[in-house]
Amino acid sequence: MTTLRNRQVRLKSRPQGIPQADNFNIVEVPVEPLGAEQILVRNIYLSVEPAMRGWVSDVGNYSEPVAIDAVMRAITVGRVEQSNDPRYHVGDIVTGMLGWQDYAAVTAATIERKVGAGFPISTALGVLGINGITAYFGLLEAGQPKASDTVVVSTAAGAVGSTVGQIAGIKGARTVGITGGADKVKLCTEEFGYAAAVDYKAADFEAALDAACPNGIDLYFDNTAGAISDAVYQRLNVNARVVICGTASVASWSPPPLGPRVERIILTKRVRVQGFVVFDLLARYGEALQQLGKWVKSGELRYREDILDGIEAAPDAIAGLYRGDNFGKRLIRIAAE
Amino acid sequence: MTTLRNRQVRLKSRPQGIPQADNFNIVEVPVEPLGAEQILVRNIYLSVEPAMRGWVSDVGNYSEPVAIDAVMRAITVGRVEQSNDPRYHVGDIVTGMLGWQDYAAVTAATIERKVGAGFPISTALGVLGINGITAYFGLLEAGQPKASDTVVVSTAAGAVGSTVGQIAGIKGARTVGITGGADKVKLCTEEFGYAAAVDYKAADFEAALDAACPNGIDLYFDNTAGAISDAVYQRLNVNARVVICGTASVASWSPPPLGPRVERIILTKRVRVQGFVVFDLLARYGEALQQLGKWVKSGELRYREDILDGIEAAPDAIAGLYRGDNFGKRLIRIAAE
Repeated sequence: MTTLRNRQVRLKSRPQGIPQADNFNIVEVPVEPLGAEQILVRNIYLSVEPAMRGWVSDVGNYSEPVAIDAVMRAITVGRVEQSNDPRYHVGDIVTGMLGWQDYAAVTAATIERKVGAGFPISTALGVLGINGITAYFGLLEAGQPKASDTVVVSTAAGAVGSTVGQIAGIKGARTVGITGGADKVKLCTEEFGYAAAVDYKAADFEAALDAACPNGIDLYFDNTAGAISDAVYQRLNVNARVVICGTASVASWSPPPLGPRVERIILTKRVRVQGFVVFDLLARYGEALQQLGKWVKSGELRYREDILDGIEAAPDAIAGLYRGDNFGKRLIRIAAE
Repeated sequence: MTTLRNRQVRLKSRPQGIPQADNFNIVEVPVEPLGAEQILVRNIYLSVEPAMRGWVSDVGNYSEPVAIDAVMRAITVGRVEQSNDPRYHVGDIVTGMLGWQDYAAVTAATIERKVGAGFPISTALGVLGINGITAYFGLLEAGQPKASDTVVVSTAAGAVGSTVGQIAGIKGARTVGITGGADKVKLCTEEFGYAAAVDYKAADFEAALDAACPNGIDLYFDNTAGAISDAVYQRLNVNARVVICGTASVASWSPPPLGPRVERIILTKRVRVQGFVVFDLLARYGEALQQLGKWVKSGELRYREDILDGIEAAPDAIAGLYRGDNFGKRLIRIAAE
């Protein structure tokens, strides 16, 4: 039996702001013999998330920063190849925080769940994974949409945003997407069912936002922060809700950039702003996945994937997200299903 | 019978930012014969509120701006002198939005309520009026304090802030006041029961805030916005709540001043920020007044009043609030009780 080789994408240096390709390197190490109770998972798809920018930052965040020279933290989906845990069998498809690498030898505590049949396994990283769950609870619990609401979503064509927009539509709200470029505007209205979509890169962005929201904005699902949010805040209605789920438009928070203060808008419009981190709801993921699965099956909830091939694509993949290169959920395929 | 003369403080010009004495003038007009269903109220105390800055501004707010040459909008307490409404009798003490003037001829719709016996009538404008009600609902409903919380209050010695601090203390929280100057720091700890108070004007403000909040900040009742809030946001704990009730430290919102963006803090700490305007809860004022009255009677809730004498004091009274001249609720007494 030949020793398995494990390619790992490691954090070489701590980025200032958005992680670039040269903040990572790829090393190859042997897979060690499996320890007691361990499971060896062969990763098939690696996830790429906007949140990874925060995971590698040493500015205050919701998790410890990835250490220098450690394997990049990432959710993956893969196949069990060896198991010293009777609950897992060779051939099981599992997902968890297994990192940007070919193989992960972990105990059951690191596995989030087994992935059932019935859907492509890649969906476990997107619409039927952390992105879908984020959209589900972020919109429904933190945002509390009403059927009479105008709901505005930033990064509207992205993995989280596109799901938020569709769920808000299922709940009867009028949905308006904010995205970058004419192709994504088209994707928002033709694929993801937004009533309207506006291009924040266009010169007439604010006029287009006005036209798309003739009755103002009741709920803003914010994945960007920054100047896009400034335009939205100007148009919030009384009792509006803002869910802050990401800050993709801000290149660096060290130090925080300046922007117009919003306290007066929040006060006079009685706005509620809620920061949302999906990991707080880990115990309830099953509830979201069950409903999301029904909507995907019925065709009410669509998704797009943007699949890069080969682990060599990983180092630049986060920077590409922030450049807006992707159409849909960005994944890296590193093995055959 | 001589004709009654009515001195009125009118808005002469629209201020940029904080209303100054020269934005008002005092005119004297005759009191007209009372119309059908009208009540003539002789004002005794006129209220002075930080919120008046917003009431005279034509920047977006929660009420229509006071018109130029109109009597300044204000809550007052006074005595019924004539009545064409069988529900009101000469001698009744009433409160309502009766304006900065000696006499108001109004229908019952403008009267908020009759003021019962048992408390000084001036309290109807402060701790047992809009300020106390604001503190009560703003803290308890919008802020949801827990006994384990560290609660920080800005304008801690003011009419709203001092009541917020004491109610938070009654609910078991550790309370920290932010105020301006050593005398008010002393008032906070010695009179209003704050566990600690810090002077935002002092050079060591941030260090003092750290020392006063060794376990971070769980709830921030914000009456100031601006740089004071920036310091507080840096110290918010996970699941912190912020109630925005006022923006007293910001001189002008037209245009909004710049400050450090807070989206990243709100996201990573899962903060909830809620704008609060007490007028939304008009139907529930009685509930708050009943509890506030009990606490005042028992001595658990203290209040301070800062009473100016004579209607001539009105034009400069708002500017004085923003200069921090007052110790406690600012009132203008224009007639004997």
